[in-house]
Amino acid sequence: MQNLIRIGIAGYGNLGRGVETAVHKNPDMQLVGIFTRRSPDLVKPCFAETQVFSLDALLNDFSDKIDVLILCGGSKDDLPQQGPIFASKFNTVDSFDTHARIPDYYAAVDAPATENKKTALISIGWDPGMFSINRLFGEALLPDGETYTFWGKGLSQGHSDAVRRVDGVKAGVQYTIPSTEAIEQVRSGARPQLSTKDKHHRECYVVLADGADAANVEQSIVTMPDYFADYNTTVNFISEETLAQDHQSMPHGGFVIRSGNTSDDQSQVIEFSLKLNSNPEFTASVLVAYARACYRLNQSQQYGAKTAFDVAPGLLSIKTPEQLRKELL
Amino acid sequence: MQNLIRIGIAGYGNLGRGVETAVHKNPDMQLVGIFTRRSPDLVKPCFAETQVFSLDALLNDFSDKIDVLILCGGSKDDLPQQGPIFASKFNTVDSFDTHARIPDYYAAVDAPATENKKTALISIGWDPGMFSINRLFGEALLPDGETYTFWGKGLSQGHSDAVRRVDGVKAGVQYTIPSTEAIEQVRSGARPQLSTKDKHHRECYVVLADGADAANVEQSIVTMPDYFADYNTTVNFISEETLAQDHQSMPHGGFVIRSGNTSDDQSQVIEFSLKLNSNPEFTASVLVAYARACYRLNQSQQYGAKTAFDVAPGLLSIKTPEQLRKELL
Repeated sequence: MQNLIRIGIAGYGNLGRGVETAVHKNPDMQLVGIFTRRSPDLVKPCFAETQVFSLDALLNDFSDKIDVLILCGGSKDDLPQQGPIFASKFNTVDSFDTHARIPDYYAAVDAPATENKKTALISIGWDPGMFSINRLFGEALLPDGETYTFWGKGLSQGHSDAVRRVDGVKAGVQYTIPSTEAIEQVRSGARPQLSTKDKHHRECYVVLADGADAANVEQSIVTMPDYFADYNTTVNFISEETLAQDHQSMPHGGFVIRSGNTSDDQSQVIEFSLKLNSNPEFTASVLVAYARACYRLNQSQQYGAKTAFDVAPGLLSIKTPEQLRKELL
Repeated sequence: MQNLIRIGIAGYGNLGRGVETAVHKNPDMQLVGIFTRRSPDLVKPCFAETQVFSLDALLNDFSDKIDVLILCGGSKDDLPQQGPIFASKFNTVDSFDTHARIPDYYAAVDAPATENKKTALISIGWDPGMFSINRLFGEALLPDGETYTFWGKGLSQGHSDAVRRVDGVKAGVQYTIPSTEAIEQVRSGARPQLSTKDKHHRECYVVLADGADAANVEQSIVTMPDYFADYNTTVNFISEETLAQDHQSMPHGGFVIRSGNTSDDQSQVIEFSLKLNSNPEFTASVLVAYARACYRLNQSQQYGAKTAFDVAPGLLSIKTPEQLRKELL
């Protein structure tokens, strides 16, 4: 029996809870504990046996007790600061998802990880992550083609925040909806030119503040630059009760479609899609599978920052290479 | 400018022609030539500039002129014999697709490749290959779940060959048809128990040899182990004219769907699908992308037999790791 892979969780929001749950689905892993900025006494883990520690204890007391630390903080404020620090002491996996800043973040994590012989898997999840791998597969397998990414149906955190900042809005959520007609056009092999707004529309569910004017609020939302002005946006006004009852889950998903030609006469379509009832739980589950790969990469002296592009699929599986060839190939 | 990757093609049927075409879509590669068992004068390549050589010349005259040899022979008779021999002199990529024999074939190729510091990628294509990767992703990302592979609608080369080997069959083709209802059941997250024949049926179109007995032929086909015995198979007898007119294209494709739960309340569905107008051209295109990976693995001293499970996605792309992180992650 091999030793269990010892996992730590840094940060305990929706994603951290998802990781705690996912570790229990992987019998080759054990959870060392949750590390939180809050007072550990105030944190209620999903499993009674989960230990909770202060984030301050992590760097000093746990560097030889954790094989892979999964970073569950946010990409805006937490990871740019935490990633490089933790990667100097631990093998790490994170879901850094600010696409435009990935090269900088990669460099910031790569240096301390390499110097300290640690392995840091960055930008793991579904987008970036599984969608990125499928964009790469599409280009490599069908070099003469077009790649289309559709998101949704899904709750968008950023756009929901934007809705809630509008004057007269008490509460609200926003869903990104992929255009069924656009998806069918792409699947046909026609290789249409489509902008992001051709591919999606946006649905808002808004609770008005007392005395707010619905028409004004709607106008402010649908004309908001960057977020809504370029899209077909619908605004639905609902009660606080309805919001609480029907809009608390966090579904998401989407499609990566590559349509290409292997010769003039032969079109081919590759499609990858996700239908997620819980976006944070799925992202957590991806992080945990990549924690296994992170551990193995480090064992084979592959140090520094890596992305999903650098991980051979076999490293993700609990099975041996022999089993994989026999059972899954 | 880096040197071009020098590709050789061993065997020139539908798959070999697809590889010839695919190499032209990859600007970092050049085609050294086609190697054929036939008299080279009798082979008409797709591109006028393609050189054609005798297969006999390959081992003696070309071992330092080819970076990766793509084996385009069949899995039943050609590859078990050719694979180990060529892997002792060349880096190779093949599409060995007899699932049950993969462990033996792996061992037979691994020994000579390792001994001679060559890299042999075996069982590359879409199934085994891209579908295998997605079966692995499904299990690793959603350990509590079920994987469903559906094939078709498509012409199966292996099954058509099997039909044509039956005594009394003059010519014929076989189509695999996925069950639409079964696919919808799986996509719903219901995790049904489905046997292979619940998921598909097989349709054969057969031209009888002169004097052959239709009932005997049908019985031989539907009871054939591995190929048909486990499936709901229908055999249609047609004329040679109908076969020539209606059954010359080679479409294929299918679906790999993983339906799982990240917690009791949250179901998640991952789906990968292919809609191929030309199965051999797509398979060829996959082989060529993996030839790039094969070359790079060999350059980094990764010797021996490997499968798609051992290849990090980034190795497939013409782009640099920096480009990939910036453009596709």
